[in-house]
Amino acid sequence: MSKYWGDIVEKLMPYTPGEQPKDLSLLKLNTNENPYSPSPNVLNEIKSNCNDSLRLYPDPESIKLKKILAEHHKLPMESVFISNGSDESLAFIFQGLLKKDKPVLFPDITYSFYPVYCQLYEVEYKQIALDQNFNINFDDYLIENGGIIFPNPNAPTGIPKSLKDIESLLSNNKHSVIVIDEAYVDFGTSSAIKLINKYENLIVTQSFSKGRSLAGMRIGCAFGSPSLIEALNRIKNSFNSYPIDRLAQISAMSSITDKIYFEGNCNKVIEARVYLENQLESIGFEVLPSGANFIFTQHKQKRGEYIYDQLRQNKILVRRFNSPEKISNFIRITIGTMNQMRKLVSIMREIVE
Amino acid sequence: MSKYWGDIVEKLMPYTPGEQPKDLSLLKLNTNENPYSPSPNVLNEIKSNCNDSLRLYPDPESIKLKKILAEHHKLPMESVFISNGSDESLAFIFQGLLKKDKPVLFPDITYSFYPVYCQLYEVEYKQIALDQNFNINFDDYLIENGGIIFPNPNAPTGIPKSLKDIESLLSNNKHSVIVIDEAYVDFGTSSAIKLINKYENLIVTQSFSKGRSLAGMRIGCAFGSPSLIEALNRIKNSFNSYPIDRLAQISAMSSITDKIYFEGNCNKVIEARVYLENQLESIGFEVLPSGANFIFTQHKQKRGEYIYDQLRQNKILVRRFNSPEKISNFIRITIGTMNQMRKLVSIMREIVE
Repeated sequence: MSKYWGDIVEKLMPYTPGEQPKDLSLLKLNTNENPYSPSPNVLNEIKSNCNDSLRLYPDPESIKLKKILAEHHKLPMESVFISNGSDESLAFIFQGLLKKDKPVLFPDITYSFYPVYCQLYEVEYKQIALDQNFNINFDDYLIENGGIIFPNPNAPTGIPKSLKDIESLLSNNKHSVIVIDEAYVDFGTSSAIKLINKYENLIVTQSFSKGRSLAGMRIGCAFGSPSLIEALNRIKNSFNSYPIDRLAQISAMSSITDKIYFEGNCNKVIEARVYLENQLESIGFEVLPSGANFIFTQHKQKRGEYIYDQLRQNKILVRRFNSPEKISNFIRITIGTMNQMRKLVSIMREIVE
Repeated sequence: MSKYWGDIVEKLMPYTPGEQPKDLSLLKLNTNENPYSPSPNVLNEIKSNCNDSLRLYPDPESIKLKKILAEHHKLPMESVFISNGSDESLAFIFQGLLKKDKPVLFPDITYSFYPVYCQLYEVEYKQIALDQNFNINFDDYLIENGGIIFPNPNAPTGIPKSLKDIESLLSNNKHSVIVIDEAYVDFGTSSAIKLINKYENLIVTQSFSKGRSLAGMRIGCAFGSPSLIEALNRIKNSFNSYPIDRLAQISAMSSITDKIYFEGNCNKVIEARVYLENQLESIGFEVLPSGANFIFTQHKQKRGEYIYDQLRQNKILVRRFNSPEKISNFIRITIGTMNQMRKLVSIMREIVE
């Protein structure tokens, strides 16, 4: 604490991202990155735009990228917002759309950045407990609120909600904004983007970090009715005119046009997830049903902390959360290539047997 | 306005950046970009890091880049902060260090993003008039305040303050944070970074967009005592863990190590500025003394708006500010190459004669 700090600074409890280890020999299954490289077309496009043009500011509005995304999702361009990772979209959403005189609702077990945003922007919030199967029960959200936010699939559980359930929530909660954080949607979960034309209070965020293998380039986006997107534009343009650099814009555009590569990789990840789920269940693990590129799992006998440590000794890095209590025995494993999953399973056998 | 907007959104009057024209045949002298390409070493480094690694998150703390900048400025690493352009540093500074129960002070004619940040974070402010020669007079700042911020050199005037004057302000104002925005410092103005070890309330922001020809890559930084920088880290990590992508980090590191290229370009810009000043003065322009990569100038007979329009008809784009009144007759011209300045001067002759 310093006398020069503003009041907000001392109160903050910043978010801690998963470890980015210096030891490159580790098999890194801790931050839900894609095991496959970005598309060769994306890499070539970046290289061929790496020239004199970098001395010039990028397009502050990322217009070309917005057009490509709008066409891709059959939305007007005014329904598309681009940000520096989807976290930046989420931050602006908390600041501009969820700060109300009633509490915003989100699950008690979910992306742990949400309460941090609430601190930063002084947004009142209420956490709603998952049910005993770690599911989000939308009936519990039909209470007074200043907005609702949840990831679909949820993190770190990986459990997806159906579009039917989501539409039922939307039709029962029209007075406040509903935010669906689709960071992990590309691995078999249905996107709610197709509901945007029907519900003007719906906003959906997505990321290029997972399905599109571009975590290193920091691109996120949000989709919603033009008036919700206008709120995000006003905040963005009062914060940082040019958050997306030239090469990031290029990489995102190129990735969207390379559909086959993207879909192929997502399918390989889903296949490896199904393999891992089956193998782990056969050696005594409980695996929550996942619609993401990770699984959340606990063993019936061995403690999560023990498994985490044993994996680390075997040069495999996964993620574990000390709190809350009810998930402290779980580990979260990012889905890698089939070969990586085979290696993981064989080490897991040794650990639990 | 929408019923879904939070209270802050409607009040915002976003910043408008200079035009990024689609017509590439225009000579673009409107947003203070460097006329020279980034260093060939920088471009090569980006290309050779454009590979599989882009699927992985970047280092959230940009540690390697911080180390290089710390060494470069002979500061501890804890005195260095990295951001997505210097605007992001400025935003966090307003949010975390300038939001106090007294008004922050800045010049009435200065970077027009400052009042926008004040709106966004609800920071009280007071604008202090420049003197009749468009100078910042620090004596006017020795009043009750919650912080002081000014660019050095100032924008859009280009007029620099001496380190002696700055140190005198620092020694007379120790109770609040003093922010020096050095976006344009590389063109002959003295940096206040060397005063950081002496004044724990001093914070200096810099940019890679001007002197280092990397406007397209979005890298900014801030330097200050470890406790001020800690405040920025706490906000950054409560907002967006990974704002600087892998290629941006690479480009910045490579640029810092390529001193000769950087200094050579800055000297060429200074040389072209001196040429332009002399030529314009010889045809009836008043040119404010500049320590930046632009000049702020008005003609003794012709109106600024007329000159702006005539230049545009001749495919030269400069910048003009409609308000406040006392600068509405000026135009701001970015310094280009010597050839570009010769061309500009020859067209200017036709316009004013």
